Amino acid sequence: MPELAGAAQTLENSTGSAGVEGLVSTLKDSFGERCGTSAALREQHGHTTTWIETQPPDAVVFAQTTQEVSDIVKLCAAAKVPVIPFGTGTSLEGHVNAPHGGISIDVSQMNRILDVHPEDLDCVVEAGVTRKQLNSYLRDTGLFFPIDPGADASIGGMVATRASGTNAVRYGTMKDAVVALTIVMPDGSIVHTGGRAKKSSAGYDLTRLMVGSEGTLGIITEITLRLHGQPEAISGGVCPFPDVQTACNAVISTIQMGLPVARIELLDSLQVRACNNYSKLDLAETPTLFLEFHGSEAGVKEQSEMFSAIAEELGGGPFKWATAAEERTRLWTARHDAYWAGKSLKPDADIMVTDVCVPISRLADCVQATADDIQAEGLLAPIVGHVGDGNFHVQVLVDMDDADAVRRGKDFVERLSLRAIDMGGTCSGEHGVGQGKRKYMEREHGNALGLMKAIKLALDPDNIMNPGKILP
Amino acid sequence: MPELAGAAQTLENSTGSAGVEGLVSTLKDSFGERCGTSAALREQHGHTTTWIETQPPDAVVFAQTTQEVSDIVKLCAAAKVPVIPFGTGTSLEGHVNAPHGGISIDVSQMNRILDVHPEDLDCVVEAGVTRKQLNSYLRDTGLFFPIDPGADASIGGMVATRASGTNAVRYGTMKDAVVALTIVMPDGSIVHTGGRAKKSSAGYDLTRLMVGSEGTLGIITEITLRLHGQPEAISGGVCPFPDVQTACNAVISTIQMGLPVARIELLDSLQVRACNNYSKLDLAETPTLFLEFHGSEAGVKEQSEMFSAIAEELGGGPFKWATAAEERTRLWTARHDAYWAGKSLKPDADIMVTDVCVPISRLADCVQATADDIQAEGLLAPIVGHVGDGNFHVQVLVDMDDADAVRRGKDFVERLSLRAIDMGGTCSGEHGVGQGKRKYMEREHGNALGLMKAIKLALDPDNIMNPGKILP
Repeated sequence: MPELAGAAQTLENSTGSAGVEGLVSTLKDSFGERCGTSAALREQHGHTTTWIETQPPDAVVFAQTTQEVSDIVKLCAAAKVPVIPFGTGTSLEGHVNAPHGGISIDVSQMNRILDVHPEDLDCVVEAGVTRKQLNSYLRDTGLFFPIDPGADASIGGMVATRASGTNAVRYGTMKDAVVALTIVMPDGSIVHTGGRAKKSSAGYDLTRLMVGSEGTLGIITEITLRLHGQPEAISGGVCPFPDVQTACNAVISTIQMGLPVARIELLDSLQVRACNNYSKLDLAETPTLFLEFHGSEAGVKEQSEMFSAIAEELGGGPFKWATAAEERTRLWTARHDAYWAGKSLKPDADIMVTDVCVPISRLADCVQATADDIQAEGLLAPIVGHVGDGNFHVQVLVDMDDADAVRRGKDFVERLSLRAIDMGGTCSGEHGVGQGKRKYMEREHGNALGLMKAIKLALDPDNIMNPGKILP
Repeated sequence: MPELAGAAQTLENSTGSAGVEGLVSTLKDSFGERCGTSAALREQHGHTTTWIETQPPDAVVFAQTTQEVSDIVKLCAAAKVPVIPFGTGTSLEGHVNAPHGGISIDVSQMNRILDVHPEDLDCVVEAGVTRKQLNSYLRDTGLFFPIDPGADASIGGMVATRASGTNAVRYGTMKDAVVALTIVMPDGSIVHTGGRAKKSSAGYDLTRLMVGSEGTLGIITEITLRLHGQPEAISGGVCPFPDVQTACNAVISTIQMGLPVARIELLDSLQVRACNNYSKLDLAETPTLFLEFHGSEAGVKEQSEMFSAIAEELGGGPFKWATAAEERTRLWTARHDAYWAGKSLKPDADIMVTDVCVPISRLADCVQATADDIQAEGLLAPIVGHVGDGNFHVQVLVDMDDADAVRRGKDFVERLSLRAIDMGGTCSGEHGVGQGKRKYMEREHGNALGLMKAIKLALDPDNIMNPGKILP
């Protein structure tokens, strides 16, 4: 593929921040106070919630419309200055950093819910709308937006990183949730991908190409999302297991039997201990599944009973389940606070968060090998996972001032990423590549990486869109 | 977008079949009897099951491995001769025609099922495996592959056209069914996209870009498919409605309530009459829904009762449902024979088949406007649709020797396509673009078409991969 080698070479020649000063001056003239250059603002916009060092942009512009985003990108394109999209800054792999400087386009003020179509189970939102904002808005419609990555992320950011979370086992990921997009391309042109039909076989799936492209192919400004009816009934509960293998076997059986489980989450013993401490639970400190079922009253009862039988047959259980909302809320609040519970194990430590995803048949092997690795290295690192998808997270508690500890943490993340890839999985199930996982892309994708580079070069020949992310 | 205008221009300059004679001679030397040039073989490989005129390739090569496909494509690339992938030839929009000549690569001998992973609910197949072959193979595993486009298409062809069918309302389309692909690119290189993890956020979604690309970006040779557990119980039945609007309202309510209906198909009065005649049914000749529910014994009973109540409340029904396999089989055989039933209305006629898809809220409007159009034009054209997705088909019965009738049929298809697009839908829900729907691509996609052309140009700069399809 000679043309792909050429593409790779061109990507290296990022034009960086030439001409950025004049550009910032023009942006200030146009946007007034909505264009900021204070150190605090810039630092905040390069900040990521994980361990990757902050690289602030040259300026931050708060856009309010797709047309404004287009205007800004056109100026950046003319000056060949990088553009970094910013939603809520809750991404985990350095996605919002500006390694070559440039303009951070903050879409948080683009937070209008433009349309809800209950008959079509879809809605149209601006990129800065957050998932909690959307679900509050939808509450009285009988509909909800299921994708839940934990953080109250912007929908635009969730599209960009192909987010998923606890409900993905039933409702899919952002790949499945996005129906159509409005995107500002690297030349500033405004493009609409997809339509409102539930399916189409008319042409290349540009929508899916943009989902997960992390701002490297364009800036997502409006999203048409698929919604779901709020379930009539919900039940949920916790189920202890003697070991990780048995818990994973229960997950496999559950999915093979076609139980439409809405959430099925694994916490390892250490994570259970952390949650007991932090959220005042009294769970047995053993590998534990948190489950939730959605359906009719009879349906959730049937599902709960079937899961109970599966767990018991495999030597797990008892499965304690409840349909009472307050009890479920208490449990799932604990699950959602797993990050803070983990941190409470060593309050003065920082956290390196990472995630991988493997075929579910390899999940127990991968979790066990990872737990062994954690023990051998003497790390403090609870494991929690969306195991119905074969996806799990490790939080490595690290003192970021201790260079040796940081190195050991990074080495652990590298071993974990390669272990997942070697098992036929991926170095990131839902956090994205950003800066943190770029170095694994070749191992994971082989020469398909050349195709990604060719597409990047075709759509963004000057490499101004979020340079230094995804592609090595 | 100056670079996109350039892309469009280059696509016009297809290099056609220069050098094809020497190439065919080389292929005959290498492949012996597996490279054929007889008129009958070539005609059959340009043949489409619809009204578009046959344009045969210069030669047909039966490939048996990915490496052979790669070898053939490398030769074609060197000679700048078009490559047209061929599975079973059941596509409907001229996908396998060779308007610029070239080599048809027939993958029907690549029909091995390479792997089934019951724990991961996936399998790996070669492109020439057909869906019925796969399901026969899977029968004893408790798993099945749900996507059902009617014809016993090859899996490779189903990926290429982003096929779906009656089960898509519950199980999704090929977009959702494909986990990973092996593809021979336009330069002959072999690329693997995706992995076996159920989800990933590591890089551009090349898999989804290839699904629906109709052989214009590469030839799909191996596919990893998501499978599903065979449902414990199935129930199904038919429900008459006084008019199309009421039937569509019942569909909308069913989906809004989250009933996980597995199939929900609309037949208009004429189609019901045709099925009564052809399949010896005695249904009332009024708009009718055919339904199927999958789940536990209790679940399908509950779903059937809930649908019954919905239909009754809206003025439809009675919904007659049964769990007995023979009764269901009789009904669904009739549904699957709808094409032949339609043809039986005028046995000496040919059929122009077309499909569109609209947001479900516009479905009744679109079906009604189309029925009015059929009546005003005096066409004989039954309607049948996967209405849970907003997708429907029209079979226009036409005497292809009557130029005026053909023109009126084509004009009708054009009005239908534009009507669907103008309602926020698409000119093809599941048949693809091929040659037949190229002219609607600009209307449907606007300047997003420029992105498609840029991607095509980046990956296939000499435009050798199935030229003259999708992109106008």
